[in-house]
Amino acid sequence: MSFAIPVSGASGRRGVGRPRHSAVSSTLSPRDQVLDAAGRLFVTRGFAATSTREIAEKVGIRQASLYYHFAGKDEILAALLERTLRPTLDQVDQTLALTAEDPRPTALYLLALVDIDTLATAPHNIGLLAGVPDIVSSPAAEAYVASRNDLLNAYRDLAHTVATESGTDDLDPEDLGELVLQLVEGVIRIRARGRAITTSTARSIASSCLRLCGVGAEDLLVARSVAQERLVDFATSREGSNEITD
Amino acid sequence: MSFAIPVSGASGRRGVGRPRHSAVSSTLSPRDQVLDAAGRLFVTRGFAATSTREIAEKVGIRQASLYYHFAGKDEILAALLERTLRPTLDQVDQTLALTAEDPRPTALYLLALVDIDTLATAPHNIGLLAGVPDIVSSPAAEAYVASRNDLLNAYRDLAHTVATESGTDDLDPEDLGELVLQLVEGVIRIRARGRAITTSTARSIASSCLRLCGVGAEDLLVARSVAQERLVDFATSREGSNEITD
Repeated sequence: MSFAIPVSGASGRRGVGRPRHSAVSSTLSPRDQVLDAAGRLFVTRGFAATSTREIAEKVGIRQASLYYHFAGKDEILAALLERTLRPTLDQVDQTLALTAEDPRPTALYLLALVDIDTLATAPHNIGLLAGVPDIVSSPAAEAYVASRNDLLNAYRDLAHTVATESGTDDLDPEDLGELVLQLVEGVIRIRARGRAITTSTARSIASSCLRLCGVGAEDLLVARSVAQERLVDFATSREGSNEITD
Repeated sequence: MSFAIPVSGASGRRGVGRPRHSAVSSTLSPRDQVLDAAGRLFVTRGFAATSTREIAEKVGIRQASLYYHFAGKDEILAALLERTLRPTLDQVDQTLALTAEDPRPTALYLLALVDIDTLATAPHNIGLLAGVPDIVSSPAAEAYVASRNDLLNAYRDLAHTVATESGTDDLDPEDLGELVLQLVEGVIRIRARGRAITTSTARSIASSCLRLCGVGAEDLLVARSVAQERLVDFATSREGSNEITD
């Protein structure tokens, strides 16, 4: 999971809908093959209904080999859940640094874009697992819940500042943060309905986050345009890197 | 599940957080006792991990008695999922009729309030079950999925009209409808974090739906105030009814 902020020139198709990994599963490491097969099974059949034996079968390895990579099903689940957050969390500081001199709506817009990209490209739409109550309350999800709280705090702080500046103060900051994050997680629901998250959809969802905080049409246009410049700055500073996909 | 639009004078505590049914479980019909126990078990332990035997045990009846009310676990699940939507769907026409002469933001605001109330008072926050991928894709959820699509269509039509009138046209109507509904379903997530959905929170979430569609601060105030009048009209027309709780 490398740098994933959607860049200006990115094409409309961003691989969403078609799980990124399945097409190249033969090039995945054995560990990633296990995660890929498990993700597909957990999402389609359910976590409780899936056994490590079945996961191993899908990958074409023995169950013992699977245990070489993971202590058990819980550890696989934890690794999958982590993938729905880690790429975003790893870029929070970067996003804030990139927009340090800009109005806060720009920062919130960029954070949302990064997060949308993470959720839009997570294989098998594994973000779905995070909506399962008995999964989220299980010990396997402890690290996930802590990480999501970290992300929630980032949203809460930004959204609260943006909302206050926009004169929108009717929501408790915690609830506001949760609603903005929930809006971004709408990506999971849209994917689940078989719809693609195009670059244009991603931008519209990020814009919706600002609107939710009461940002008006004019300020929204400014935030979008400045965010676009920051993305280009960022891409330029990484010139030569092949980590930014088409 | 009777009329439940939150009324002007409603106090801040609306029973949310404390499941409405558990306090009065002894006054529930045997069928509702089964639903209550099953809802609690499905949400805390998971659908797959819960047996009809355990549900019967919780209620204090024999498994055979449970089968008198439900053909099986799937039918119980279907009845529970239905409860997260039916009270809202039953009030969609009424909500539209009530606001027929008003600007569309008022209608969307009222629909959101009704829906928020349904989700905020669903026992055991059973809306959580609707987020479970293998549950939603199971045959037991067919009626639920169809009902949710009906509701989604109502949101899509209203939100699209509101957004167009506000000059917000960057989202596909289907995606916009899904995002607005997702925002309302944020109630489930807020409850899951142990936070109460007060009347004030409900109004703020409904306002957020309008903001998401690009409704400005001034129009939002108008919509809220008109919606409040409609609620009072409605309450008055039902005077003498004891179905509207404090």
